[in-house]
Amino acid sequence: MKIIIDTLGADKGYEEVVLGTLKAMDQHTGFEVLFVGPENKIKDVIGDKIDASRFSFLDTDCFIENTEEPTKALREKENASIVIGLKALLKEEYDGLLSCGSTGALLAGGTLIVKRIKNVKRPALMIMAPSLTTPFILMDVGANVDCTVEMLSQFAVMGSFYAKGILGKENPSVALLNIGSEEGKGDKLRKETFETLRNSSINFIGNIEARDIYFGKADVVVTDGFTGNTVLKTTEGVSMVLGKVIQDAIAKNAKTQEEMILCKNIFGAAARVFDFNKYGSAPLLGLNKPVFKSHGSSDKDIIAGGISNLIQYLEQGTNEEIKNILLKEF
Amino acid sequence: MKIIIDTLGADKGYEEVVLGTLKAMDQHTGFEVLFVGPENKIKDVIGDKIDASRFSFLDTDCFIENTEEPTKALREKENASIVIGLKALLKEEYDGLLSCGSTGALLAGGTLIVKRIKNVKRPALMIMAPSLTTPFILMDVGANVDCTVEMLSQFAVMGSFYAKGILGKENPSVALLNIGSEEGKGDKLRKETFETLRNSSINFIGNIEARDIYFGKADVVVTDGFTGNTVLKTTEGVSMVLGKVIQDAIAKNAKTQEEMILCKNIFGAAARVFDFNKYGSAPLLGLNKPVFKSHGSSDKDIIAGGISNLIQYLEQGTNEEIKNILLKEF
Repeated sequence: MKIIIDTLGADKGYEEVVLGTLKAMDQHTGFEVLFVGPENKIKDVIGDKIDASRFSFLDTDCFIENTEEPTKALREKENASIVIGLKALLKEEYDGLLSCGSTGALLAGGTLIVKRIKNVKRPALMIMAPSLTTPFILMDVGANVDCTVEMLSQFAVMGSFYAKGILGKENPSVALLNIGSEEGKGDKLRKETFETLRNSSINFIGNIEARDIYFGKADVVVTDGFTGNTVLKTTEGVSMVLGKVIQDAIAKNAKTQEEMILCKNIFGAAARVFDFNKYGSAPLLGLNKPVFKSHGSSDKDIIAGGISNLIQYLEQGTNEEIKNILLKEF
Repeated sequence: MKIIIDTLGADKGYEEVVLGTLKAMDQHTGFEVLFVGPENKIKDVIGDKIDASRFSFLDTDCFIENTEEPTKALREKENASIVIGLKALLKEEYDGLLSCGSTGALLAGGTLIVKRIKNVKRPALMIMAPSLTTPFILMDVGANVDCTVEMLSQFAVMGSFYAKGILGKENPSVALLNIGSEEGKGDKLRKETFETLRNSSINFIGNIEARDIYFGKADVVVTDGFTGNTVLKTTEGVSMVLGKVIQDAIAKNAKTQEEMILCKNIFGAAARVFDFNKYGSAPLLGLNKPVFKSHGSSDKDIIAGGISNLIQYLEQGTNEEIKNILLKEF
């Protein structure tokens, strides 16, 4: 198994990405890595930590920034790490790619270079999200803002197979994000998608309201990218506001060192709940080969976890499963 | 000034609604009330607390439950308090109505009986929402799930005038909820609405992301009912999950009575932040006469505040302002 690691565009720089990769290579011995990035500098980080036969390089210093318009940047920056990496992924010898760089560039590049699976309308951006019980998959979270019934139905099927592989559930439950849990609720898009999902082969459990998703009531929550992105950003805003109010109240009320420690223990647990990055990585679902994204701010441990997700996805042949089901059902 | 109070359909029963009304009548002497509900029982609650010349009655025991299909219930229950109340509102002598009953029935009844202001596409459901600074108006929050550019533009104008009246701001800032703050972000509906709002007479400050709304960056946040309702329910879910995690952590970490009190002081402040009901009431904007909704679970203090909102709205002639601007701009 050979995977491609785009080392550029991460907030903490290429070193953190390389260190995370080395950690993953230490944990799993069954794969090789093609590093895309500054070859000599990466070699300095690796030193003699890993057997040289397990890695190779594509040398570049160029990458696409988060602030650049993705399609324009892809066209103009032929040497950007993400362009070189995605082109290499077309070769048969490489099985998957992981990047911490610009999501927009990865999404546009994935679609233009790696291309969609036959029958897939649009690749989807998913996220592993926390709940009071087990984590769940939320998709789409921003790649596709104008969705059709067919797109949402495909997200549901792809999400179901990803959940099966990554969460290890035989028959993951899939719910449609809606403004009421009863049948017949929502806008035109939701009403029609409900009907289609009810007649599909997946374990569709009906509508779910946003207030219930973080209680772990569904393994996969399907929505359009506008709504999914709004859910993520509302979650972030509410967490930030409550964090600010609690911190101010601690500063005002906790007088002694012991009281401060008590508050930190209690509040720390809450502050970690809605950390979406802890799950390491998530794929762009619907591409011919696996393209995974880790958050730009990931540290080496999170990146190592993100690479484990990719390896698990490859070992379980989830992309092939998704290809087969989409050919059959759409 | 004469207002109509629908006393039925509230979670705590007619008594709480009557007590809240009496409190408001105590605070403001300049208005009379028509109570719709069980006349004799209401008289028992009033006793001799308020001068009898200030109230009158429409006697009924019938009301529409939250679980009923609104349009069907409106047709079948001619004696429902909301039907009787809205019909009375058509008479010239009555200026406005407040109810704690079924939102769906109030919305459908408002549209069918009181009818829309000329040029208004659809009445909108707004909510007063908390922020770290001053409260703001979020609309629509569920009445209109399939929206057009014209509907969102009207929500923006109506919200702007309501904010001017209720928040006392001369030129309230209005933002469009979107998945990015830059121009050109979002789906087709948001892109087109942005252009229309930019050319309108209101103080349009551009796009706002859901993570920023609770920091008080806009006085009015405009969105479609599907997204607005999802924002509210995500907020509720995140608050509930964080509350649960914090309560569990307190139970585990706080050992003494003093530590429990400290925690209660600190985390109690956070628990109250996202209480949306504390603002008393909000109107269905776009109807010929003011129809206000208080939350079903409101206590008498919240109901008294809700009635104050309605009185303020009437005193400032906000509905007339909305009528005039909609005739001019649409």
